[in-house]
Amino acid sequence: MTSAIVLGGSRGIGKAISDALKSIEIDVFAASKKDIDTSDLNSVRKFLENHNQTDILVLNTGGPVPKPFATITEDDWKLYHNQLFLGFVTILQNIKINDGGYIFLISSSVIKEPNAKLIISSAYRAAFAEIFKVLSKEYAQKNISCINIAPGPINTDRTQELIENVQEFEKSLPMKRLGEPQEIGNFVKAIIENKIKYLSGVTINFDGANSNYIF
Amino acid sequence: MTSAIVLGGSRGIGKAISDALKSIEIDVFAASKKDIDTSDLNSVRKFLENHNQTDILVLNTGGPVPKPFATITEDDWKLYHNQLFLGFVTILQNIKINDGGYIFLISSSVIKEPNAKLIISSAYRAAFAEIFKVLSKEYAQKNISCINIAPGPINTDRTQELIENVQEFEKSLPMKRLGEPQEIGNFVKAIIENKIKYLSGVTINFDGANSNYIF
Amino acid sequence: MTSAIVLGGSRGIGKAISDALKSIEIDVFAASKKDIDTSDLNSVRKFLENHNQTDILVLNTGGPVPKPFATITEDDWKLYHNQLFLGFVTILQNIKINDGGYIFLISSSVIKEPNAKLIISSAYRAAFAEIFKVLSKEYAQKNISCINIAPGPINTDRTQELIENVQEFEKSLPMKRLGEPQEIGNFVKAIIENKIKYLSGVTINFDGANSNYIF
Amino acid sequence: MTSAIVLGGSRGIGKAISDALKSIEIDVFAASKKDIDTSDLNSVRKFLENHNQTDILVLNTGGPVPKPFATITEDDWKLYHNQLFLGFVTILQNIKINDGGYIFLISSSVIKEPNAKLIISSAYRAAFAEIFKVLSKEYAQKNISCINIAPGPINTDRTQELIENVQEFEKSLPMKRLGEPQEIGNFVKAIIENKIKYLSGVTINFDGANSNYIF
Repeated sequence: MTSAIVLGGSRGIGKAISDALKSIEIDVFAASKKDIDTSDLNSVRKFLENHNQTDILVLNTGGPVPKPFATITEDDWKLYHNQLFLGFVTILQNIKINDGGYIFLISSSVIKEPNAKLIISSAYRAAFAEIFKVLSKEYAQKNISCINIAPGPINTDRTQELIENVQEFEKSLPMKRLGEPQEIGNFVKAIIENKIKYLSGVTINFDGANSNYIF
Repeated sequence: MTSAIVLGGSRGIGKAISDALKSIEIDVFAASKKDIDTSDLNSVRKFLENHNQTDILVLNTGGPVPKPFATITEDDWKLYHNQLFLGFVTILQNIKINDGGYIFLISSSVIKEPNAKLIISSAYRAAFAEIFKVLSKEYAQKNISCINIAPGPINTDRTQELIENVQEFEKSLPMKRLGEPQEIGNFVKAIIENKIKYLSGVTINFDGANSNYIF
Repeated sequence: MTSAIVLGGSRGIGKAISDALKSIEIDVFAASKKDIDTSDLNSVRKFLENHNQTDILVLNTGGPVPKPFATITEDDWKLYHNQLFLGFVTILQNIKINDGGYIFLISSSVIKEPNAKLIISSAYRAAFAEIFKVLSKEYAQKNISCINIAPGPINTDRTQELIENVQEFEKSLPMKRLGEPQEIGNFVKAIIENKIKYLSGVTINFDGANSNYIF
Repeated sequence: MTSAIVLGGSRGIGKAISDALKSIEIDVFAASKKDIDTSDLNSVRKFLENHNQTDILVLNTGGPVPKPFATITEDDWKLYHNQLFLGFVTILQNIKINDGGYIFLISSSVIKEPNAKLIISSAYRAAFAEIFKVLSKEYAQKNISCINIAPGPINTDRTQELIENVQEFEKSLPMKRLGEPQEIGNFVKAIIENKIKYLSGVTINFDGANSNYIF
């Protein structure tokens, strides 16, 4: 039976992916923050002791609280360096993805269009996107596909916290609504279910036509 | 019943998309060059008389014969300006995509990483990608998703013609193989089947980790 | 004496480049629309009869009147296909750039962040940017540098026409002002004056920090 | 008198920039690793005690030794996180750039086209590029221009170390040579000398037409 590990699998986009994968008979470990806290490398290493291989890996984690650049402390930077970058790096250095498997990275549209509010997230998610791109070429040799999904505004608890007036915000979006986590869940499921392998080394904006950059 | 028009639907990627959509009970019109020749605007206009609306539209057409820049004539430019750009523009100006529909553009990885051999294709496909991006925001208001798929080396007759020694070429690719048209066909099918709508205004490299640009 | 041909050299950015180059003793031919109309290939060919070589070439031309996509006619497309693309192509196919020379393309920030108002310009300028990128590698062999400058909002007659309330618009810009044509003129001059050659195959946003895309 | 601080100013590109700025009567502090070691935040903070304002700041630092991903240790990541990212962040959080000033970031072409050999550099330089882009909009309000120069293969000691057979490598480059540090030095000088301010929020490939990505 195909196995999957979904980080941040207990809520938001991670939960939607877990649920979608379960619906096609995949043996999903939906890891919550209790199972693995990517901001704590010891927690990451402990997790890896019990989870050292999988067919499908979904790298997904919440983002930092918005903070103006001038007020971000050294501790803040280091915390999110772990959470958004070094935790994932440690996982990829130590986990075996089985041949023919998949790695999905749930990043953010801010890696292409960074903003002041999410400056920490913009920086470290972009850093990891570089790692992921480089590794996609190595994983390709084992028929493992690496897919970076960069969501725009999605209807999660976090978006509800970040945006003051969600209803007003939705009116400003091309589709007049937030994306639903289930759309991303189903997208991930669909790729796996259809054994689409040649989609790899790619960053996929998932933002309802909201971004302005040509690519 | 959901309807689809697939241009260049009789061979290669277009045929794979047609076949995949037929498998989920979509009423597909797989247009061949006899039905519509996008390099001939009269042919395009005639086609539109009989095909003036659809739920799903797949904009897909073959590329030009490779020619060194210095030898490309005014007639060549104008022919492929029609085939790769103005034909598609004319279609979008005159066809009604039903609310909640999809438009897929099959472009090419050369729009991001152009090359001398495919310079005509690089130019006009990039031009149309700009149109498609701009329009994605308008179509979003009617819940129509616009998805630009940019294939890398795919196992089609055309690739067999373009590449001298395909077997040797495959060894140079990260996945050690060309992509299969069916992977793109299934990808398109999967998006529609799963009613994924928030994926819009996006260019998706479909190249088996072959491209080098970070995004 | 070093020679330069500046298209659209009688006004706006083109004039500013001409003036800057004249200030460093370059023999500048500042071509006006009377000398060469890039929307008319016969005019282009005639110009090339008398101007078939140069040390420095500045490809620069005005953009189209803004028109909504639905109302753009076949004639419009073909006119601007000539003006923004095929005219430049014809020039590069027929002019000799002397070894160690420069080609500057004045494009637009809309090639990276297209918009509905300037959709024609977005498309054809992007198309030519692809040609220019490909050719930069060939020109490099003769030590000719190809530099694509992509201006954002610059204080020209055209901007004054395009923007309804310029003063209000300026307040929305990061620098609270339009760019001055002289800044681009001096930039071009400075590169030549300092014999900077390794800057080639590059697209340089010139937009006062206005664009949002990371690169 | 205009003042400048150039990090890594004692060798390679940093030295070339220092020398170029000195040639136009700028009061340059060419900081060597003895003055400030960006990999050591205490060293950074100490430096800032004595250098808390400037007109021109050049953020420049050497890159890591190439190491395969699998062998990079937690300590390596943290060291280069400081050197390539957090050191620069700390500087920008604590130094005053005088109104009308300039900040230059010397990054690398690997931020757009990452590679396995320079994976650490690709990641952290990309991360800082995001910070720099976001801040360019804030600095713009004080007429401070932020310019990210992304060099390709430049003729420095480091390149000589990284590349096994430099002569052979040069033949593979479009210009058949490495770039010279002086070209970047003169470029920086030229921008300042000509008071070009509207060039901001931009990443400028400086790679002799070597990159393949369209922008």
